[in-house]
Amino acid sequence: MTSTPLSPTPRSTVRRNAVRARTDRADLHAVLDAGLIGHLGLAMPSGPVVLPTGYGRDGETLYLHGSSGAASLRAAGAGIPVCFTVTHVDGIVYSRSAFHHSMNHRSAVVQGTARLVTDPDERWHGLAVLTEHLAPGSWDHSRQPDRKELAATAVLALDLTEASVKVRTGPPGEDERDLADPQADWAGVLPLRTVWGEPEPCPLLPAGTPVPERVSSRG
Amino acid sequence: MTSTPLSPTPRSTVRRNAVRARTDRADLHAVLDAGLIGHLGLAMPSGPVVLPTGYGRDGETLYLHGSSGAASLRAAGAGIPVCFTVTHVDGIVYSRSAFHHSMNHRSAVVQGTARLVTDPDERWHGLAVLTEHLAPGSWDHSRQPDRKELAATAVLALDLTEASVKVRTGPPGEDERDLADPQADWAGVLPLRTVWGEPEPCPLLPAGTPVPERVSSRG
Repeated sequence: MTSTPLSPTPRSTVRRNAVRARTDRADLHAVLDAGLIGHLGLAMPSGPVVLPTGYGRDGETLYLHGSSGAASLRAAGAGIPVCFTVTHVDGIVYSRSAFHHSMNHRSAVVQGTARLVTDPDERWHGLAVLTEHLAPGSWDHSRQPDRKELAATAVLALDLTEASVKVRTGPPGEDERDLADPQADWAGVLPLRTVWGEPEPCPLLPAGTPVPERVSSRG
Repeated sequence: MTSTPLSPTPRSTVRRNAVRARTDRADLHAVLDAGLIGHLGLAMPSGPVVLPTGYGRDGETLYLHGSSGAASLRAAGAGIPVCFTVTHVDGIVYSRSAFHHSMNHRSAVVQGTARLVTDPDERWHGLAVLTEHLAPGSWDHSRQPDRKELAATAVLALDLTEASVKVRTGPPGEDERDLADPQADWAGVLPLRTVWGEPEPCPLLPAGTPVPERVSSRG
């Protein structure tokens, strides 16, 4: 059970626990780019909060956004330390022992002090990056924000300087003694993946409106 | 763009943003039970941390676990406030405006003070709950923890007393003015779901070992 993401330290096993800390920037970027939502943690006066948050990456900068009225965003934008974590679960690892059950996963943990973006050009750029991450092609195919919408939106920037990546892949790590245990009737990985469904057109669209390729090709 | 999970406040729209705070305990339980991983946030001396964490639910108690050597777990178990968040992304909401782009999602946010479980019976029970949540049926089909493994594992309990659920479903909320915008060529939802793949047997299993129903029926 310590083979969970919280506890990547391998024990002496037949097949070592495959959790690895990655240091390559390409690994970090890949984990972030493959995600849609991250979890933003910050220490509020009332205690820590962890909020699901959309994001987008431009080079070594993550852009986050939310309502300019949200206390959490105001706090983060005021320059308090934050942690932003993106996790993908790739499979359940069934082991011959309860202890070595685990998850195959990829996770990125970014720590730093978020910066409230105030420069109008960078705000605009950040919003484009966020929209394009969520819905590639949408920025140029939707009405862009007006002044009122801009005022309602806080954009934060977070440097990727302090970031770590962990990846676990492969079959279970097992103790030698468990290999012939008759109680353990199976071991292996049950993979898990995320798939797109059929696009569901807005009911207010004229009938027969084609689904654009930027949406349908995502599937 | 404020239609993201961070900013559920609806604006005046043709179709109101469908983010709803739910108060039903059944909604809370359903969001938690459908997840595999949550994000545990706590304020460490070095700043906030957000860690992907396995969990299991028994009634109004969440059990979390990890290495007893992890500084974060020791801190959480010492009785500091934590926040534990589980999020499902159900679809990308394409709107006629960048501002109303959003995600359909379900999220549960639990706040409280985690308790380090020290009673041997409750520890054993918590580990069974955690294992069964990750891999239903595995507790009775794998070797259960020995003394050394137990010592290496910290089990935390977190009450669901202070918990909130948010759910967004349905098509985009739109401004009246955007409905006839020729630039906005499509609007709707691209659903996203998580599916199981084919079980991958451990290479150390004897050839021809059947996949037990508790694994295959999950697909």
